Amino acid sequence: MVDTATLAVYSRAGFGRSVTRGDNPALLVVDFSYGFTDPAYPTGADMSAELAATGSLLEAVRAKGFPVVFTTIAYDRGQLDSIAWLQKAAGLAALRAGSRLVEVDDRVAPREDETVLVKTGASAFFGTPLAAILAGLRVDTLIVTGATTSGCVRASVVDAVQSGFPTVVPRQCVADRAAEPHAASLFDLNEKYADVLDVDEVLAYVRGLSPRTTAHAEVSA
Amino acid sequence: MVDTATLAVYSRAGFGRSVTRGDNPALLVVDFSYGFTDPAYPTGADMSAELAATGSLLEAVRAKGFPVVFTTIAYDRGQLDSIAWLQKAAGLAALRAGSRLVEVDDRVAPREDETVLVKTGASAFFGTPLAAILAGLRVDTLIVTGATTSGCVRASVVDAVQSGFPTVVPRQCVADRAAEPHAASLFDLNEKYADVLDVDEVLAYVRGLSPRTTAHAEVSA
Amino acid sequence: MVDTATLAVYSRAGFGRSVTRGDNPALLVVDFSYGFTDPAYPTGADMSAELAATGSLLEAVRAKGFPVVFTTIAYDRGQLDSIAWLQKAAGLAALRAGSRLVEVDDRVAPREDETVLVKTGASAFFGTPLAAILAGLRVDTLIVTGATTSGCVRASVVDAVQSGFPTVVPRQCVADRAAEPHAASLFDLNEKYADVLDVDEVLAYVRGLSPRTTAHAEVSA
Amino acid sequence: MVDTATLAVYSRAGFGRSVTRGDNPALLVVDFSYGFTDPAYPTGADMSAELAATGSLLEAVRAKGFPVVFTTIAYDRGQLDSIAWLQKAAGLAALRAGSRLVEVDDRVAPREDETVLVKTGASAFFGTPLAAILAGLRVDTLIVTGATTSGCVRASVVDAVQSGFPTVVPRQCVADRAAEPHAASLFDLNEKYADVLDVDEVLAYVRGLSPRTTAHAEVSA
Repeated sequence: MVDTATLAVYSRAGFGRSVTRGDNPALLVVDFSYGFTDPAYPTGADMSAELAATGSLLEAVRAKGFPVVFTTIAYDRGQLDSIAWLQKAAGLAALRAGSRLVEVDDRVAPREDETVLVKTGASAFFGTPLAAILAGLRVDTLIVTGATTSGCVRASVVDAVQSGFPTVVPRQCVADRAAEPHAASLFDLNEKYADVLDVDEVLAYVRGLSPRTTAHAEVSA
Repeated sequence: MVDTATLAVYSRAGFGRSVTRGDNPALLVVDFSYGFTDPAYPTGADMSAELAATGSLLEAVRAKGFPVVFTTIAYDRGQLDSIAWLQKAAGLAALRAGSRLVEVDDRVAPREDETVLVKTGASAFFGTPLAAILAGLRVDTLIVTGATTSGCVRASVVDAVQSGFPTVVPRQCVADRAAEPHAASLFDLNEKYADVLDVDEVLAYVRGLSPRTTAHAEVSA
Repeated sequence: MVDTATLAVYSRAGFGRSVTRGDNPALLVVDFSYGFTDPAYPTGADMSAELAATGSLLEAVRAKGFPVVFTTIAYDRGQLDSIAWLQKAAGLAALRAGSRLVEVDDRVAPREDETVLVKTGASAFFGTPLAAILAGLRVDTLIVTGATTSGCVRASVVDAVQSGFPTVVPRQCVADRAAEPHAASLFDLNEKYADVLDVDEVLAYVRGLSPRTTAHAEVSA
Repeated sequence: MVDTATLAVYSRAGFGRSVTRGDNPALLVVDFSYGFTDPAYPTGADMSAELAATGSLLEAVRAKGFPVVFTTIAYDRGQLDSIAWLQKAAGLAALRAGSRLVEVDDRVAPREDETVLVKTGASAFFGTPLAAILAGLRVDTLIVTGATTSGCVRASVVDAVQSGFPTVVPRQCVADRAAEPHAASLFDLNEKYADVLDVDEVLAYVRGLSPRTTAHAEVSA
């Protein structure tokens, strides 16, 4: 999507700069649960390619010992009445705690030592301890993958940069149900909030880093 | 913007429903400061029509005694180093505390008893007490106006619904620098987060309500 | 604990006023999990009396249809490295997800339609969607019970009032491991943040209310 | 305050451990505004000794180039109705925006490049971008000073550690209106949330560090 009129306006406004990547990244995998990745569900779509690309990135990140955090949306029966978002996005009420829809897809399965945060909103940061976890790990760069680009990924990226973390989005690792919102959000994200990069560039960045050394934030015993 | 393929996918996913409006709304006016409303500034654009429409809405809301909250972005010198967002949206560093750019435009001037929240991120809720203020006032519906549609308005709407407030966006009261991101965000917002309505419908809704009676949340003396 | 010198100072400062209770309360039960309520665990203590008093209150609250939210602390293996609090309060690392220590005590067992929030910090609001849930339910009064008075209860009460909710603490429904911190925190809470009341007064308040009618915040279908 | 019975219980529970200090600290100065430091105001008290000790610490921290953040409570007219805390702590309504009470005391005057955050609650983190600022600066240790020990300092320390930052409280740099709550909160803080240290130990820690080098989180131009 080349929106040249918008690019000119944004260039004048001072948008579209690059973030400075650090040497202690973390990987966030947003809502790659079956409710989103299995096209059999009304809220799902085929995200095979994006899952595969994220799998490669997971491997590189784990090889260096950098932290990985997953999110999944899950509602208990009580929350069906209290979550305002479900008025508008009523279909998401199918994401019931304990159901297959809220399990992270096996193609990007979390390891036992990786955190899976349950969330009730669009952003991975809203109503979760994610910002505290990242600060506690002294993360200086957040790589955001997952679904959907125009929904939970975008909301998570906005919160990531607001929370103090320079953010990178590997283009091949974010998926959406619909092509136009996907493209429009990638454009906005790259102009205003994060560096949208080719996954090969992100892989090269991660592979070029020294392995993570567990440092001052650790539990002593 | 009629994106019929996306609409079909979203209909199947259960998006695009309507929110239930309550009888105790509040009006949020996001970033209608000169840095955004004065086209002389690189970060600004002509938002005269949207300011006028918001002015009419302000009048109706105030006539009924409903609360109004404004936001403005303002950075002090110390924050230029600590706000990660300014790496990417570097032009916003011009919004210096104390400058004309951070003053709310006179065409929608806050009254002395209305709160102006200073924010450092995109969302009106991030790093501000807005959610607590709305909960303390028992607000049950949030009307969101301001700038820019694809930036701070969108981020604020996502946080509003995440925070528990059914949200309404009067289409004529939100402005952007660029046409395509504006249209794409209105589409996404209406499908997933808020009712995007004609301002006349929002005016009729507000005018049809009983005036606000200050209730249990008030300071006793 | 009658600290008359402090009371004189606080009276001059304008503390110790009463909150205005509304007609739509919710009940919060903080960390009454076996890790806190079973004295066999190093982090536990005998809280039988407080559990019984909370049980009576639960019954009254449920009889009127008001919402109840529970919290429990639970850490997965990954979080042992990222939660700064575990440096200081290292014993809490025993509260491992999936263990009996993180289950809510059967004496105040949650019903299937009541939410149990998992938290990683002291406050029931930190890193959870509690504030959004309460705002979404238009709660106007929060009754806080649980353990421990000087730890997670106190932190939760401070966040409750900061989040916009007038707060009530029934004295017989909050428990601590140690007598002095318990008494000191009840004193501070009553002076600065919440009404610390006899449980009978809270029961009479709840029983005198009209039953909750599910209203505008509900999911339509 | 030596509460040996409590200490035995806390030792069994695994409390009272030490935090691991890092090499990139920040200093937080909570509410040392005239409303708290000038005994002429009902909400104030004589805090001369604590202001002097904090002044020494400020000098050491600035000499190394570490960040300093100040907070002050200030309410506008609109917020007097919406802040639930003012029901209970009604005297704090005197802290009106624009008045002398909300100015930081000259004895610890902020420099032009240091941030002063306006807050409406007890915690320096609640409704402010403080956590994001600290994460953006890659702070790994927070030194908390200010007033009052049992109120805003305690609430800020609890939020600091919840937000991922190992926290240190120099005993001589925190002040309260009343002796018993001050002592009780220092005891609780040291057991559960932060290292309460002699200011000389904190000075030695800061002076022993390499100066801060502005790093990857900075604005490039």
